[in-house]
Amino acid sequence: MAQQRRVQLSTQRPTSTVYVLGTELSLDIRGCAPKDAVAFHVQGTLGVKLYVVHETQSIKLPSSVSRWPLAAGTEVLLAMDALSKDVGDEKVRISYFAEAGGVPVGRAMLYLTCVEVSLDADTSRSGAVNRTLLDKTTWTWGPDGHGAILLVNCDRDEPQGKKPDNSDTAIRSYADLKDMSQLVLRTRGPRTIFTGHRLILHVDYSDADKVGVFYGGNSVALEEYKHVLGGSKLAYAVKPSRHQEESIFYVEGLVFPDVGFSGLVAFHVTLLESPEKGLLETPIFTDTVVFRVAPWIMTPNTAVPLEVYVCSVEDNEDFVAAVGAMAEKAKCPLTVCPLPENGQDRWIQDEVEFGYVQAPHKTFPVVFDSPRDRGLKDFPVKRILGPDFGYVAREAPEGASSLDAFGNLEVSPPVTVRGKEYPLGRILIGSSFPRFGGRRMAKTVKDFLFAQQVQAPVELFADWLQVGHVDEFLSFVPAPDRKGFRLLLASPSACYQLLKEKQEEGFGEAAMFQGLDGVPKPTINEILSNETLRKFNNYVQSCISWNRDILKRELGLAEQDILDIPQLFQGDVDTGAGAFFPDMVNMLVLGRHLGIPKPFGPRVGGQCCLEERVRELLEPLGLTCTFINDYFSYHILSGEVHCGTNVRRKPFAFKWWHMVP
Amino acid sequence: MAQQRRVQLSTQRPTSTVYVLGTELSLDIRGCAPKDAVAFHVQGTLGVKLYVVHETQSIKLPSSVSRWPLAAGTEVLLAMDALSKDVGDEKVRISYFAEAGGVPVGRAMLYLTCVEVSLDADTSRSGAVNRTLLDKTTWTWGPDGHGAILLVNCDRDEPQGKKPDNSDTAIRSYADLKDMSQLVLRTRGPRTIFTGHRLILHVDYSDADKVGVFYGGNSVALEEYKHVLGGSKLAYAVKPSRHQEESIFYVEGLVFPDVGFSGLVAFHVTLLESPEKGLLETPIFTDTVVFRVAPWIMTPNTAVPLEVYVCSVEDNEDFVAAVGAMAEKAKCPLTVCPLPENGQDRWIQDEVEFGYVQAPHKTFPVVFDSPRDRGLKDFPVKRILGPDFGYVAREAPEGASSLDAFGNLEVSPPVTVRGKEYPLGRILIGSSFPRFGGRRMAKTVKDFLFAQQVQAPVELFADWLQVGHVDEFLSFVPAPDRKGFRLLLASPSACYQLLKEKQEEGFGEAAMFQGLDGVPKPTINEILSNETLRKFNNYVQSCISWNRDILKRELGLAEQDILDIPQLFQGDVDTGAGAFFPDMVNMLVLGRHLGIPKPFGPRVGGQCCLEERVRELLEPLGLTCTFINDYFSYHILSGEVHCGTNVRRKPFAFKWWHMVP
Repeated sequence: MAQQRRVQLSTQRPTSTVYVLGTELSLDIRGCAPKDAVAFHVQGTLGVKLYVVHETQSIKLPSSVSRWPLAAGTEVLLAMDALSKDVGDEKVRISYFAEAGGVPVGRAMLYLTCVEVSLDADTSRSGAVNRTLLDKTTWTWGPDGHGAILLVNCDRDEPQGKKPDNSDTAIRSYADLKDMSQLVLRTRGPRTIFTGHRLILHVDYSDADKVGVFYGGNSVALEEYKHVLGGSKLAYAVKPSRHQEESIFYVEGLVFPDVGFSGLVAFHVTLLESPEKGLLETPIFTDTVVFRVAPWIMTPNTAVPLEVYVCSVEDNEDFVAAVGAMAEKAKCPLTVCPLPENGQDRWIQDEVEFGYVQAPHKTFPVVFDSPRDRGLKDFPVKRILGPDFGYVAREAPEGASSLDAFGNLEVSPPVTVRGKEYPLGRILIGSSFPRFGGRRMAKTVKDFLFAQQVQAPVELFADWLQVGHVDEFLSFVPAPDRKGFRLLLASPSACYQLLKEKQEEGFGEAAMFQGLDGVPKPTINEILSNETLRKFNNYVQSCISWNRDILKRELGLAEQDILDIPQLFQGDVDTGAGAFFPDMVNMLVLGRHLGIPKPFGPRVGGQCCLEERVRELLEPLGLTCTFINDYFSYHILSGEVHCGTNVRRKPFAFKWWHMVP
Repeated sequence: MAQQRRVQLSTQRPTSTVYVLGTELSLDIRGCAPKDAVAFHVQGTLGVKLYVVHETQSIKLPSSVSRWPLAAGTEVLLAMDALSKDVGDEKVRISYFAEAGGVPVGRAMLYLTCVEVSLDADTSRSGAVNRTLLDKTTWTWGPDGHGAILLVNCDRDEPQGKKPDNSDTAIRSYADLKDMSQLVLRTRGPRTIFTGHRLILHVDYSDADKVGVFYGGNSVALEEYKHVLGGSKLAYAVKPSRHQEESIFYVEGLVFPDVGFSGLVAFHVTLLESPEKGLLETPIFTDTVVFRVAPWIMTPNTAVPLEVYVCSVEDNEDFVAAVGAMAEKAKCPLTVCPLPENGQDRWIQDEVEFGYVQAPHKTFPVVFDSPRDRGLKDFPVKRILGPDFGYVAREAPEGASSLDAFGNLEVSPPVTVRGKEYPLGRILIGSSFPRFGGRRMAKTVKDFLFAQQVQAPVELFADWLQVGHVDEFLSFVPAPDRKGFRLLLASPSACYQLLKEKQEEGFGEAAMFQGLDGVPKPTINEILSNETLRKFNNYVQSCISWNRDILKRELGLAEQDILDIPQLFQGDVDTGAGAFFPDMVNMLVLGRHLGIPKPFGPRVGGQCCLEERVRELLEPLGLTCTFINDYFSYHILSGEVHCGTNVRRKPFAFKWWHMVP
C-alpha cells in the first residue's frame, strides 16, 4: 500500500507541498470548504493524477469534469509519476459550489513539487544495492525471500589493532568498509527542495546499540568517513549534495542475534517539512529498510577442512607430528599453537569453535571463544582474530562448568527431519538430565546458539560423563551413500559383543594396553568377568541409547545411518564416566582421513581387534583410518584426539537466507 | 511420531524392561547376536505387537513365522496396547540361527511390563484437564489451535496479604489454587513398577524462574500443599500412591511474557530405570506438556465499563460529582480515591492501565502500574491489588519521562487491516520522531507491551506535545455502524473552519471562556487574526495529520471512520503543544455516555459553538454528550477529563488464544 499523507488546504492562500514519488496525497477537501459549499470540482495540471473516492463507491475514479458532492467520506487522492523540474511546477485547483450556484463560492490552490527520496540496500541479496519493488520494510526467509543482510564486523582488518573492528567508531582501512553493507539514499528533484526540507537518517532507539553507520560524503578519502549513526547517535541530518543524487552509507553490525535481539534492524529516512520558515518541522515522508544481522554458522565434520589447529605442549611432540602427517595427507595446512601461547593447555577443541558469517557481498570465518578460560584464554584474540577473521565470545557470569567447553558443542551434517529441512545441520550440545544438581551449558552460550536460528540446537544428555562433552560419545564421518554421512556412537554393547566373540575364538588371554609402560594389562577374560565394569557399562549404554533415540528423532536418522563403535567406559555415579581405553569416536575428521585415538585393544593374530573392527566398519565408506597414540599425552588427562585438535572448515555452499528456520 | 527407545538384549540372561503405552521399543537384535548367527526368528506373547523393518522394505511388516536375515539395518520394533496386570507378564523371544542350521545357536528373552505414564493439562482449552491425542509438546494459535494456558498468579487472594500471590511459595487459600492450572500425572500399571522406577517431574532451567508448581499429594488439606518446582527447584521425585492413578499438580505463572521470554513453559515427567539395583538410573521415557503464560490484555473505550476511578483532591469536588453523576447514568460503580491515598495526585489515568488475563478456567482483571511514580504511587498495590485483581508493574531504570505515563497508552477497538485481523485491537503508544533528543516510552514498558503479542502496538508521534500523551489528540467512541466505532482526532483546521464560519455569520465578537474568572476572553476575530497562533496550529495540524496517516494505515481506517473534533493548541517548539481550550477528545467514554471537557467556546445564540459542533458530530451516533467543567481543576494543570479518570472494563468475549498474532 502506498504511503498516504493528508494535506490541509486553504481557500484563503495557496498551499505548497512536496510530493514524494510512490506515495499518495489525501486532500482535506472538507476542511477548508466554505460554509455553504455542497459540491466541488477538482482539476490538476498534466503531471498530476487525481482520484475521487466517493462514499457509495469506494473504488477510485478518475476525476472527470463533473462536480462531486461534498459528502462525508468523499476523498480526493493524488499521485504523480514524473519528477518536478522546478519547485511548484504542478498544481491542483479545487472549486467549491453552493447548492444552486454556478459560480464557485471558494477556491483552494495546491502547488506541488515531485521529488524522489528512497533508501535502498541489497534487498534482493545480489551482492549489490538495487532499486526494488520488494517490500523493504519486511525481511523474509527462503529461496524467494528478500531483505538486506548485515555482518557483525567482528574481524580486525588492521594488523596492528588489538580489538575487533566493531569495538570502535573509526574506519582505518578500505578493507574495513568492505565488510560493511551499503545503504544508499537517493534524492532526486529540484535541489532547493532539499535545502529547504531536512532529511534525517535515523535508527530506532532499541536498534541503536546493534549497528554503526559510517558516511564519507562525496569523498572517497578514508579520513572523511565519519561515524554518523549508532550508539548514542540516533539521527543524522543528511545534506544531499547539489551534484550527486546518491549518498552512500556503510553499515556494520555490532552484535549477533541473541535473547531480546531477533537480528532485525530498521533504518529510516524521514523528510521534514516546515509549514513556516523556522524550526517547526513535521515529518511528511519516511522510507524504511530492514536488515538482518547474519547469524554465526558452524561447520560439520563433512565440510572440507581448511586449517587444522593443535597445541604444542611439553609432552606431546609425537602427537603433534602425527596430526601434522595426517593434515599433510589431507592437504590441509596445520597451525601449531606454541607453548608460550597455550600455557600448557592442550585442549584447543574446548577453547574455541570455528564458524563463519555470510552476506551476499562478503563471507569470513568467525571464531567463537568459549567461557572456558584456561591456558588458551588469550590465544583466540591474539592469534586468530585478524583481517577477515572474526571473533565472538560469551562469558558465563554464573561460573563456567566443564559442559561449557566446546567439545560439548558440535553440529550435524545437513538433515531432513519429517519433511523439515536443516540444510546447515543442527547444533548438538550436551546437557544434564533430570538429576538434582546436574551440570548444564551456560545460559549465555545456549541463548546465543538458539538465537542464530539457522542450526536449531538439539540438547543431548552428557552429564553422565565425568567431563561431560558430546564428543565423548558421538562423531560424524562423510559417506558416499545415504544421507552423505554416518553417525558414529560409542557402544559398550558392541565392545562386549566383540570381546566375547574373540573369547569364543580362543583369544581370552589376549591382553590390552600392550607396549604401554606402567599400565595394567587386563585380558579379554578378565574384562568379560569384571561384573562391576559390565554393570557400569550397561548404565553407560542406556545413557548413550537415550541419546541415540533423541538423535534418530531430531536428525531424522535410521538405524542404517548409525555405526556402533566398540568402546568401554569406567567410573562410578559420583565421578561420572570416562573412557576405559582411548575413546575412538573422539576423532579428528579431515575429509576422508580419520585420526582415531589408538585404542590399544587385545591383539589377535598380530592385530588390535578394536582397530580391526573399526576399519571393517569405516573403510567400506572410503575412509582412511589413522590410529594416533594419545594415551599418555591426552587419554590419561581425560581427553583424546578430537579434544586436542580443532579444524576451520569451508563454509556451506548453501546460503543461510535460503532456508526457512 | 511415537517416542522410540532402543533396548539392549542378551543371549546370556533374560532382559526385563518397562514399556510405556504409546511408545515404541527398537530391539537391538544385532548387538547380542552370536558370532555365527545369520538369521533370527522373533516371537512374542499375545499382548505384544511386533514389526520387522527390513532394509529393502522400510515399511513395517508384522512378524510372521519366517526367519529374517540378520542384515545391517534390519530392525525389530515393538508396541503394546494393554496395561500389564503383573510385572513382566508379556515377553518376546528372539532365536538366532547360523547359516545352515535348524537349531538356534542362541536365544534372547525380553520380559515386558506395560505401564501408562502421561502428563496432561487442559490442552484443548476446555476449562478442564483432558486426555488428548493433540501434540502436547507444541502450542498453536487460532480457533483450531491447542495447548494449555497458565495465568500469572498476580492477584492477592489473602485479604491480609501485602504482596501478590506469585511472590511467595505458599498456598494460603483454595482461591489461590483456583487461579492455577492443573497438571495431571497419570500412572497406571503394576504399582511395584513405580516403587522400583523413579518418576521425576521437571522443568527446564531456563523456565524455572517463570513458574511455581504446588502439590498436595492425596490430601485436599491446604497445609499439605507444598511448593515442589520452580525457582531453584528443577526436579521433583513423584511417588505415585498405591491407590490413586492421578497426581494433580497446580501450576502458577510468575512473570508475563517479555523480552527473552516467549511465554512458553515446558513441563516434563521422566521415568528412570535402574538396570541394576542401586543408583545407576537412566531415563527411559519422557512426556512433555507445554503451557503458554496468558498475556496482559487492554480493553478499548468500546468495551462495557465496570468501574470508574477518580481522585478526590482539594479543589475538584465539582469534578468528582460530575463524573459520579455520569457514572450513575451509565450504571457503572464509581470508586473515589481519597486524598490520603492519592497525595494530591489527580492523574489516575497516568498512574495505571486496567487490563485482564484469561485462561479457559479463569479470568481476572490486572492493573498495570506505570513507571510514573507520583502521589498515586502506592494506590495500585494498596487498594487495587486484591482477591482476583492482579497487579503488574514495570520500572524505568533510565528514569521515567512524561511519555511513560499511561495517558500515553491506549488501545483501539478490534480492527482488520488488509485482511489481517486484530480481534483485540491494537495498542497505541506515543513516541518521539526523528528529532535529536526526543522523549520516548521506557524500553521496559515498550518491551512488555510488544511481548504480549495479541494487541500488536502501533507507535504514534506524541513528542510534539508538552505532556506527550496520545490521549491529547485521539479517542475512540462506540458507533452503531461501520466498524463499530469512530476515531476522534483533535483538529485545529476543523476549529479554524468553524470559527471562520461563525465570523462570516456575524459572530466575530463572540468571546471564549465566558464565566471563567481571571481568564482572558479572546473573541473569534482576535483568534482568527492571531497569526502566531495560526502558524503554531498549522504545525500541530501537520503533526496530527502524520498520526492520522499512520492510524489509517495501521488500523485499516477510511476517512469515514474518523471524526475531526475542533480543537486549538498553543505553545512553542521548545515547550511543546498544549490545549488552548479544554481538550475535547480527552474524554471519558462510558458506553454511550461521553464526559467531554467543557470547551468554553464562543457563545453563539446562547450556545457554545464548539459544544454544538461536537454534538452535531456525535449525537447522530446515539451518543450522549455531557460537558464537564475541568478548567481550573485539570485543564490549567495540563490535563483534562480523561487524564483525571480511569475505567476498568469488561474483558473481550473473544478469547485471545483464538487469534493468530
